[in-house]
Formats: sequence, C-alpha cells, structure tokens
Amino acid sequence: MGEVRRAEVISVGTELLLGQITDTNATYICQRMAECGIPVYFRQTVGDNFERVQEAFRLAWSRAELIVFTGGLGPTEDDLTKEAVAAVLGADLVEDPGALAHLEQFFARRGRSMTANQRRQALIPRGALPIPNRWGTAPGVFWEADGRVVVMVPGVPREMRGMVDEFVLPELRRRGWMGQEVIRSRVLRTVGIGEGQLEELIRDLIHTTNPTVAPLAHVGEVHLRITARGFPEEVSRLLDEAEARLRQRLGDAVYGVDDETLDGVVGRLLRDSGLRVAVAESCTGGLVGERLTSVPGSSAYFLGGVVAYGNEAKVKLLGVPQSLLEEFGAVSAEVAEAMARGAREAFGADVGIAVTGIAGPSGGTEAKPVGRVYLALADAQSSRTVRADFGEEPGREGVRRLASQAALNLLRRYLLERGG
Amino acid sequence: MGEVRRAEVISVGTELLLGQITDTNATYICQRMAECGIPVYFRQTVGDNFERVQEAFRLAWSRAELIVFTGGLGPTEDDLTKEAVAAVLGADLVEDPGALAHLEQFFARRGRSMTANQRRQALIPRGALPIPNRWGTAPGVFWEADGRVVVMVPGVPREMRGMVDEFVLPELRRRGWMGQEVIRSRVLRTVGIGEGQLEELIRDLIHTTNPTVAPLAHVGEVHLRITARGFPEEVSRLLDEAEARLRQRLGDAVYGVDDETLDGVVGRLLRDSGLRVAVAESCTGGLVGERLTSVPGSSAYFLGGVVAYGNEAKVKLLGVPQSLLEEFGAVSAEVAEAMARGAREAFGADVGIAVTGIAGPSGGTEAKPVGRVYLALADAQSSRTVRADFGEEPGREGVRRLASQAALNLLRRYLLERGG
Repeated sequence: MGEVRRAEVISVGTELLLGQITDTNATYICQRMAECGIPVYFRQTVGDNFERVQEAFRLAWSRAELIVFTGGLGPTEDDLTKEAVAAVLGADLVEDPGALAHLEQFFARRGRSMTANQRRQALIPRGALPIPNRWGTAPGVFWEADGRVVVMVPGVPREMRGMVDEFVLPELRRRGWMGQEVIRSRVLRTVGIGEGQLEELIRDLIHTTNPTVAPLAHVGEVHLRITARGFPEEVSRLLDEAEARLRQRLGDAVYGVDDETLDGVVGRLLRDSGLRVAVAESCTGGLVGERLTSVPGSSAYFLGGVVAYGNEAKVKLLGVPQSLLEEFGAVSAEVAEAMARGAREAFGADVGIAVTGIAGPSGGTEAKPVGRVYLALADAQSSRTVRADFGEEPGREGVRRLASQAALNLLRRYLLERGG
Repeated sequence: MGEVRRAEVISVGTELLLGQITDTNATYICQRMAECGIPVYFRQTVGDNFERVQEAFRLAWSRAELIVFTGGLGPTEDDLTKEAVAAVLGADLVEDPGALAHLEQFFARRGRSMTANQRRQALIPRGALPIPNRWGTAPGVFWEADGRVVVMVPGVPREMRGMVDEFVLPELRRRGWMGQEVIRSRVLRTVGIGEGQLEELIRDLIHTTNPTVAPLAHVGEVHLRITARGFPEEVSRLLDEAEARLRQRLGDAVYGVDDETLDGVVGRLLRDSGLRVAVAESCTGGLVGERLTSVPGSSAYFLGGVVAYGNEAKVKLLGVPQSLLEEFGAVSAEVAEAMARGAREAFGADVGIAVTGIAGPSGGTEAKPVGRVYLALADAQSSRTVRADFGEEPGREGVRRLASQAALNLLRRYLLERGG
C-alpha cells in the first residue's frame, strides 16, 4: 500500500461556469485529501452536459486513481453525472433498493408523491456502493473498479460534507487508500499587530520549507498558517515546534488557534474572571455588544449596553458631563472614558468598555479624520484609553469592525493582566 | 464576428489544490464572460508546477479560443504561468520597459530595493501586451496569437478584478470578441416569506427556460435569480417582464433588487420618512442597532439603543414595569411592547423597536422554547407586536440573525404603510 495515489476533483454544474455560485465544495474535498495524504494535481469544472462530463471523466481516469465528482446527482434532467460515468465505463444503472426506500420515506414524511425524476435518483452503477444521504434525497456513489475509485457526491454542500466525512473517508481508510505522508495545517490567530510589523518579527521563521508559515491578513487580525508534511507523528511535532517558536516571538498577540474566535476567547476569559461587563458604543452602533453576546452563556457576564449615537443619549443614559462634550467633543479620550464609567454605573457592572469614533464616510475633520476611534475601559479603581487611527481606506464597515476588534482586544489584555 | 468563441479559465496555485483558499477568481471571471456572451465550457485548476500548467494550457488551446489564466504571475520561483505558456507556444520572454519602470517606482516609493525575482515580473512573452497593474507589482498579459487570445492575470483578487474590468474586457470588445448573445441575471430579494411558501406562490413562473427563475435561500431571506439569454435588448425585456410578473405575485415581500440590502432599504425609507428611531434589544445583543447604523448617514434617523440583557437593565434604562416582567416573563409580547415604548422615550424618538427572545442553545422551556422571539414597534399613537418561532435548528447565531431580520422587516412594513 506504499504507492502514491493521486486524486482529481470534478465539479459539475452549469451555475459554476456562469459564475452564479463559488465552488466551495472543491475546497472542502481538497482539504480532506490533503489531510489524508492523497495529492490532488488537477481539478476540473464542467457544466451539466453529457458529453463534457464524459470528456472530463476520461481525462481524470487517464491520470488519477481516485476521482471525486461533486454535483449532478439530483432529480432534474440536467443531473447526469452517474449516467455519464457509467456510459464511459460501460456499466448499466440499476435501482438500489435501500436508496429507493429512503426516497419513499422522504416523500411520505412530507406527504408528497414521488415523481419519476425523483425516483431516478435511486439508480446507481451496477457494482457500485450507494452512499446514504441523511440530509436530502440523492444517494452518493462509491465505486471501486479496475483498481481505481470513483466517488460521486451531491453538490449541496451539507450533503457533500456529510457523505465525505461519514462514508467516503472511512471507506478509503478501510481499503488502504490513505497516504503514508499527510499534509496538515494549524492556524495561529493574532490581534493588535499589523501584517508588516508581524512579518518583521518573524521574518526568519517564514522562509522555511517544512513547515511553511504563511501570514493571512483579515480585518483587524493576522493569521499565521503553519503547514507541515510528512508522517503523522512527524507532522505533529513540526507543527508543535513551529507554534512554540512563533508564540515566543509574538507573545500575547496570539489570541487563539485554528477555529477559535476573538469573541469566543474574550468570552472564556470573562467567564473565568467572574467579572461582569457593560458596553457603551457610539460609532460601532451595537457591534461590540453583538460580538460579546454571540457566545453561548454570555448572560453570565454581559449585563447590557447603550448605543449612544447622539450627544443627548450620552448625557442622559451614560451620565457623560455636558461640559466634557463641549470641551473635547464626542470623539475624544475624555468622553470615551466617561462613557466607559457611565456604562459601568448604569448596569452595575465591574467593567465598562466604550467606543467612540468617526466611521465615515463623512463627518471627519482635519483634527479628527475619518477612522479616528477612542476606546476606553474602566473598572472600580482605574481606567485606560486607547486612540486608534484606522484611516478612510477600510471604509465604514471596516472602521467599525476594526474598532470592535480593538475594544475586544483592550478587554482581553485587561483580563490577561488581571489573571496573570 | 458572428461565430461563437469559447472561453476556458485556468486557475493556477497549489494552495487551491490543498484547499487552503477558495477560488473566487474563477467565479468572477465566469460572471464577466457570461455577461459578455462568451460561453465557458470548462474550468481547470492546477498547482504551481511547470509541466502541469503546460498540460492544462495545451488542453485548453485544443478546445477554446479565449484562455484566461489567474495566478502564478508573482515574484516567487513558484510563479511560472508566463514561462509555461511561452514554452508551449515557442515564444521567448522579453523585459517590458513600461512594466519595469512601474516595478522600479513601486519599490522606490517604499524605499526598498528590487530583487532579481521581483524584476522577473516585468518579463512578458514577445508579441504580447502587458496589462498595467495599478494595485500591485506583477503586470498581466494579453496575447492574441494564431487567432486565439491568452490572458494572464494575477491571483490577488483585487489585481485580477481591476485588470479584467479595466483592460481585458475593453480590449476584447475593441477586437470584436464579445458574443452577440449575452447572459444576464437580476436578483429579486424577498423577506418575511419562507422558501416553501414562496415557491407555492410562483410555481408556474419557475418552470420556464428563458428566463429561468431560481430561488436561493439565505438566512431570513429568499432571493430569486432571474437569468435570461439572448440579444442585449431582448434580455433586458425578458428580465423586466419576469420581474413584473414576480412582483405582482409577491408584492411587498420583495424588498430590493440585486445588491440592495435590507439594512440599506430600511435606512432609505427611514431617511425619507423623517422619523427618528431608537432600539431596545435583548437576545440580539446589539445586532439590530449595528445593522441600522451600518448605513452611511444613519445618524440622521438613528438616535440610539439599549441592549438590556438582564431584567434590571430593562427596568432601569427602559422603564419596563417590574410587574410585567413578573407576570409575563422577559420573553413576552407585553415586555417587548414595553421595551419598544421605553426605547422611544429614553431617546426621545418617534419610533421604538424592541426584540426579546431566546437565542439558545440553553434557556428554553416547554412554554417558551429556544428560537421564540417577540418583536415590537411603538410610535406615539400605537404599537404592534409579532411573535416568531425560529426553532433550535438555526443555532444561536441563526436565531439572532433571523430576529434582527424580522425587526428590520417590521420597521420596513410600518414605513411602507405610512408612506403608502
């Protein structure tokens, strides 16, 4: 089982060639193949056309041992992946009793009758295995023939993912199709440090070949994707070592790994701290509260927030002194601090956070340009403020997102210091 | 120029085959081709490998007249699209003086010196046109040879889009490469009506061939994509007629067309109404305020909001009577209504909107299950409340999003009635 088998992915669907949808299925299947150590050298995309699906399949058959189709298995006349593949391999299609029973139940439960086209979905090539569809109607196909494997899964992402994870990968493993060498990635997520500054800090760690380290800029955070290839234990070791080296350079700028979000990490820190928080927002319009409450169980530590868009609301609901607004303006460190204290008091919270700024596109002045944001955090003893200039370039949504990111990071650093 | 020319898109990049990024570039190029009436029958994806890029190119050359590469034009040694294509066509690469000057300026402005690899980007096949890169370093290539056109644009989406729109399409038009028949789509966006119910209403309008009508379900809204093909004037007529038929059936459920968002449409209605609005949110945690303020100029009509997560905040900041909370519970029509009135009064607004509900995953009871949400709208004269049951299935984020969608739709319908 030592030889390397190559995979090829064929996405079927005219809507892909019209640019009406983006092919995230191929991304998903390629990720899984990389993790299983099965290299993918080519991907093809073809419309719902009998001859062209055949042409794509013949080409893949000539250069790959594992061919994965996604799309073209549904009930409409355009769906002809199974027919085209069976025709090339000279097999006929037979009705699978299990798939038929599933279809009958599916429609009976919905009180609908099954059309002839719906029933056609139960056909699979003679000698192939049907892949059960727990999420919809069309079964998939797993077909080992002439030392090759042809997989066909639907184009509906949820059905495709379910079949790949629950059936295709286990079946490939059972049959000894997994590669010896695998490719795995780990993502370190950083916040509060720009892409350029980050690259300066880790320049010598980026120009390596195994593992590779690639920075990926997102709004308000930079992710570092570490990718290693080799035998599984070696890959784990390489990823761990690279992570340790990067963390040593970057310290607290790393807030999480892989799928961890800043919202989730801040939520966990808050829960662990036992502190309760309240928010006062201006330019972010509710985004900071929305993010803090996006985490299940946030009611344990989030008491509430005030979105004070106008000055009146800042005075009335947050107790910001009118004199501060007059002297420094609504977008100022002084007002941000007063808002944070006001939120704390209004909700009886341990910690108050505030954001005030100019999201644009209008409203900027020479002294206070679009993108200027003040952030503040207040507890019973002290307060801190941060000024940020995000500029006009990110646009209104970008400035708001960056401001919320900075607010969450201010809170994160406060909680880390306190806990540490 | 009447003959149909076929296009083929080749995406180059090992990161695509590892599933590290999704190929949105191919989507974009295919959209543009459809709009220009140039059919795309195949797409290929290939890694940064000299032989395999050549193999993909030879295949495309055998069956398409217009071949568009994206990716593989950068400064690293992996970038070899130009080299592979030139090798297949037997052309050599020459340094383009304009592209070189652009590179020199680019690095001079940044105070950095240009490496040999960077300079390599100025090479283009002899006889080809360089495509200026206003967004980065690597020029693109437009090459008409043997009656075919080969286009190469970078893989960086912004650079790719800029070159396609500003250079490639105008150049194709100038050379008579646009198709006579085009494919165009228009999207009608609906809210407040489920996919099943919507399909019932327009069943006979969906089973047409030109234009086609396809429903696309999103969180809290269903879009209808109308796609027509034919000569440009005919396509416009077909789209207009289909839109009129669909609007007749769906009425106010259609809130916008193409890129219009519900946030933007509600913002426009609010601005036109002259009314000022305030928000009280519980389970949405700030999302309704965030969406209302995502529109530039929202300070003209949005006064502010209170995120009242706990009961104390509902009483203290929104004046919800303690007795109502005790009698009906925080998640009730009565409390929603009191919150809407309270928001109106706290901010001195004309209209108050409120959302209270159970986003989950925990916190549900038999009487008030996860996904139960009450919405309310209050003005000086009257109030209205809506109960929605979104169920557990959408998950916490889904329920919050659906609740915000329902709140904005409640406001939209109020403003339409008032204005109509």
